[in-house]
Amino acid sequence: MNHHDPTLDPARRSWVPSANRRGTDFPIQNLPYGVFRREPSDVGSLGVAIGDRVLDLRVALQDGVMDHLPGAIRDAGAASTLNPLLALGLDAWGALRDAVSTLLTEGAGRGSLPEGWLPSQAEVIPVLPMTIGDYTDFYASIHHATNVGKIFRPDNPLLPNYKYIPIGYHGRASSVVVSGTPVTRPSGQRKGGGEAADDRPTFGPCRLLDYECEVGVVIGPGNRLGEPIPIAQAEDQIFGYCLLNDWSARDIQAWEYQPLGPFLAKSFATTISPWVVTSQALTPFRAALPPRPTGDPAPLPYLSETGHAGGVDLELEVHLLTASMRAEGLVPHRLSRASFLEMYWSPGQMVTHHASNGCNLRPGDLLGSGTVSGPADDARGCLLELTSRGSRPVTLPNAEVRRFLEDGDEVILTGHCHREGFASIGFGECRGRVIG
Amino acid sequence: MNHHDPTLDPARRSWVPSANRRGTDFPIQNLPYGVFRREPSDVGSLGVAIGDRVLDLRVALQDGVMDHLPGAIRDAGAASTLNPLLALGLDAWGALRDAVSTLLTEGAGRGSLPEGWLPSQAEVIPVLPMTIGDYTDFYASIHHATNVGKIFRPDNPLLPNYKYIPIGYHGRASSVVVSGTPVTRPSGQRKGGGEAADDRPTFGPCRLLDYECEVGVVIGPGNRLGEPIPIAQAEDQIFGYCLLNDWSARDIQAWEYQPLGPFLAKSFATTISPWVVTSQALTPFRAALPPRPTGDPAPLPYLSETGHAGGVDLELEVHLLTASMRAEGLVPHRLSRASFLEMYWSPGQMVTHHASNGCNLRPGDLLGSGTVSGPADDARGCLLELTSRGSRPVTLPNAEVRRFLEDGDEVILTGHCHREGFASIGFGECRGRVIG
Repeated sequence: MNHHDPTLDPARRSWVPSANRRGTDFPIQNLPYGVFRREPSDVGSLGVAIGDRVLDLRVALQDGVMDHLPGAIRDAGAASTLNPLLALGLDAWGALRDAVSTLLTEGAGRGSLPEGWLPSQAEVIPVLPMTIGDYTDFYASIHHATNVGKIFRPDNPLLPNYKYIPIGYHGRASSVVVSGTPVTRPSGQRKGGGEAADDRPTFGPCRLLDYECEVGVVIGPGNRLGEPIPIAQAEDQIFGYCLLNDWSARDIQAWEYQPLGPFLAKSFATTISPWVVTSQALTPFRAALPPRPTGDPAPLPYLSETGHAGGVDLELEVHLLTASMRAEGLVPHRLSRASFLEMYWSPGQMVTHHASNGCNLRPGDLLGSGTVSGPADDARGCLLELTSRGSRPVTLPNAEVRRFLEDGDEVILTGHCHREGFASIGFGECRGRVIG
Repeated sequence: MNHHDPTLDPARRSWVPSANRRGTDFPIQNLPYGVFRREPSDVGSLGVAIGDRVLDLRVALQDGVMDHLPGAIRDAGAASTLNPLLALGLDAWGALRDAVSTLLTEGAGRGSLPEGWLPSQAEVIPVLPMTIGDYTDFYASIHHATNVGKIFRPDNPLLPNYKYIPIGYHGRASSVVVSGTPVTRPSGQRKGGGEAADDRPTFGPCRLLDYECEVGVVIGPGNRLGEPIPIAQAEDQIFGYCLLNDWSARDIQAWEYQPLGPFLAKSFATTISPWVVTSQALTPFRAALPPRPTGDPAPLPYLSETGHAGGVDLELEVHLLTASMRAEGLVPHRLSRASFLEMYWSPGQMVTHHASNGCNLRPGDLLGSGTVSGPADDARGCLLELTSRGSRPVTLPNAEVRRFLEDGDEVILTGHCHREGFASIGFGECRGRVIG
């Protein structure tokens, strides 16, 4: 952990006024990357969030204010996806961050920028920040795995491999969408509902639609096919993190998932937040994962990160806004809150395990952490857990009741990092509304 | 089935002599597409296999011999991957095939082409024919599912969902490689072998390395997120078919696969053949799948393709060439032979099921059929089945014995279609050699 990184200095202020307001997600110490358009037909531009504004990197680069940077970095900054920047690796990421931080810091850079370089975030259209070659979803919260296991396999909630393997599966890359994209309720095969004999499925709209609050890991340079990534190098592969909602159709999942795992129960949509918070910005918030309970096996040597603070102290919240609440002018209701530090496996362990068979990761690959749940009842990151598969419904402030999601419901994920002596940073929002 | 398609006329001959030789995989009636380079540093060119030659489509298009085609088709033909052509759909595919067939037909086209337009297949370097956005692997042979189920779940070989759902899972796109690419034996967590107590895994090289003989389905235009593909339109989404080897690490798979399915047991490599045989070329070989056994449920209405010949009468063979056999000058030994017609689910049913939840398919997506096995003992498409997980080893002609694959072993898949009154066509080879 580099406490002397000037871009993290809590005394640093921006000349962009909204970046210095208490409670902003995007102070000068954060500087997350995204891609946005000004008009729907535009090519995307890389942007950096600062306060309620976004720095248009392409415009800034074209105007020559960062001409001291090497050409490869300037080219990557002027691209229409994050992928070229992701491919460049740590040193380039650091150099571009330094330049952007200097440009936006009070007293260090220019102190202002021309009209149009800093549009309001509310004015621009966020798009998917990167082209995702492959999306992999892990299952790294032991609290989630245990809670869900109890529902699907009461006799056998946590399988014997869980404490040895960061369990994961390949997800669907084509249906990863950016925050704000409507989510169409999927149809599929499911049982029950009185439409057929109990042992026969019917095809129709999902009845048990759920969200899963996860953290997304955005991969940098990657590795060549056949060449694993040692655990000591895993962190260098992580460009940054976003929020991720792994929408899940529980009735479809229960019927389809054996023996090859979830498929259509997940592939209809996965929503990610528009901003990717960099590993560098998260440096002050790194911490060791909780010690493993007595009796649990130590990670096998290839996954052992002894002495490394592999976790991220990131507090996640899930909020729900129903159609009625929206009509009544109510604010979203918080359903749960959990810490990303409460995981059983760290992001670095996920990276190293993923490549341990020689599987090649590529710039822009996305890893989901799996639902982030904590040990407390109000730290359950999906409705399946929170309502015990509908048996303990949630009552909302306007007296509505939810077992699973209904059409018109909007799910909003947020994430924040706080630590004494450092500027607090946030992830913005990951929103999605269910449509019928 | 169009019996009057002139490109399928069995009397049609090419002026390329090797295309008329008995036993060629690539007569004028086939015309499969691939992508090749002349030098490793070249940009790929689309090619069409004809006899032992390959027509360089970019060179032919640049020279103006197909100027009657619309610009979009000419642009797609001059691209460096199949993706732009895949996006154009049926009419464009038919128009380009007509033009290529005419160009190469004896007495119809030019009767010769300039030096360099038709390099020998042996001279060029095949590359992956398309950029694969997502790769999905199905499990559509009930013979394979039953044989494997007996090994992993003796009490419960075929799960109750199998006869309702074309079971599939998301695969890894990054590690799909073209025929001829060496396959590095993966390492991973597996149990047994005397290295640890029986209930504890160790990390090391896979001991039970296997192939799976499959057919790959290459997707055309695709669908928009949220908009399913009706079964009557599923065939229009299939540009063509290739051979696919779903390399599998059985020891890693057995330990990791619950509850989320296969992951690192598969993601180290998937090999596909360089040539994509078009749906149009396969028209004469379409046939209905075998009738479902009495008592099996009919497919649910969204998957019902009554009256449509959903299957493909394609005979697949698996051959093995060990390092010793190679040194002794022996030819590859055939391990098994099975028909792709013996599937429980058709390619069209896989496409429609995949999109039934609104999941978007994109041009270049790849679907694997799952291991193609038939009811006979010598029709088992992987070693797991063929040797009953090693308990019935295979003896090779030079007296070597195989339970699973050893370093230096090369697996060669082939596929052929025959039908009285039509020209026989083949798929070329899908080869991969295991390296330690």
